[in-house]
Amino acid sequence: MTKTTLIEGRIQPRSGVHLSLAKGDILTVIDPEGEQVSDLIAYNADDLSEYISSGRSIDYASRMFLTVRDVVYSNRSNPMLTIIHDEVGRHDFTLTPCSAEMFRKLYSEDEPHRGCEGNLTAAVAPLGLSRDDVPVAFNIFMYVHVDSETGKIEVRPPLSKPGDCIRFRAEMDLEIALTACSAGQSNNFRYKPIDYVVTR
Amino acid sequence: MTKTTLIEGRIQPRSGVHLSLAKGDILTVIDPEGEQVSDLIAYNADDLSEYISSGRSIDYASRMFLTVRDVVYSNRSNPMLTIIHDEVGRHDFTLTPCSAEMFRKLYSEDEPHRGCEGNLTAAVAPLGLSRDDVPVAFNIFMYVHVDSETGKIEVRPPLSKPGDCIRFRAEMDLEIALTACSAGQSNNFRYKPIDYVVTR
Repeated sequence: MTKTTLIEGRIQPRSGVHLSLAKGDILTVIDPEGEQVSDLIAYNADDLSEYISSGRSIDYASRMFLTVRDVVYSNRSNPMLTIIHDEVGRHDFTLTPCSAEMFRKLYSEDEPHRGCEGNLTAAVAPLGLSRDDVPVAFNIFMYVHVDSETGKIEVRPPLSKPGDCIRFRAEMDLEIALTACSAGQSNNFRYKPIDYVVTR
Repeated sequence: MTKTTLIEGRIQPRSGVHLSLAKGDILTVIDPEGEQVSDLIAYNADDLSEYISSGRSIDYASRMFLTVRDVVYSNRSNPMLTIIHDEVGRHDFTLTPCSAEMFRKLYSEDEPHRGCEGNLTAAVAPLGLSRDDVPVAFNIFMYVHVDSETGKIEVRPPLSKPGDCIRFRAEMDLEIALTACSAGQSNNFRYKPIDYVVTR
């Protein structure tokens, strides 16, 4: 069955987009230059109070780092997205999107960028959602090292090489937002774009 | 300065309670019999759409497992609770509360208990909050082992011995809910009570 490309585009460095997916649509997220992170959030298009849940997804996968065949579940334990292809194999689902507060607290920046949190909030604002509705994101290509003993975490450069991608199947009609990450630490201090393609 | 006990009580096995804390109040959570988990959620008493955030807290602590001096932050990056004393040192902040769906999916139970999720939802219902408002909980005494390489997680019996406690200081006026956990795997299959004390 040939797939039709519905939409494709480039997310400029330190920005974000909103996309609508129908059940069955395939979303491909590509790291065109390598070592870049893309924060993904998703809501049930028919009821925006259902959203992706890191806690449910990690619990049901019994794995902190999701990859092929793992499912991103909602807060109501319904499948939202299934990872059907993954050329990188390491993503994060524990940290909230980078934000002005994070840049202030962790990097002592005086005039911080609004970060992925600000970009995601702006992307979903037309849906009537606000900053409080932005959940822990699925941080595509983000490499967070965890020390098993101490629990210490360390944000390292992503393992993604130029052109690497991850592919999701929408398991329900979804409103999603996607960014090209604004945090230097997560992309080795080279702010880059992210590409996406939606096929049906 | 002598502290006054405002309220103390026992949470019966597989149940939950709601408590109100004023800024500065001290909450002590005690595991009276050992190896039991207590799920804690908290909301800003003045604006219930501000709630504890696992993602912010882990990011700002740079540690997956919070302990003494670590702060539980809100989704708006404000301090909600500071851990001021910790006799166990291992708690989880990645998994959602156990739920009927979890018992069905992971343990194939036909008539599952409503779990901590159901107990937390019932505890906060009088505040006008619903199941969708229950965030990833701070899972006191819960021991989740994480494999650094594969990300595989494994819920093990808590490290808490009879009488061990953890103590928090409220950093704002809070509405909280607290459970004695309903999941066998998290308490070594002996469903037990949890004790709490609030002092001012």
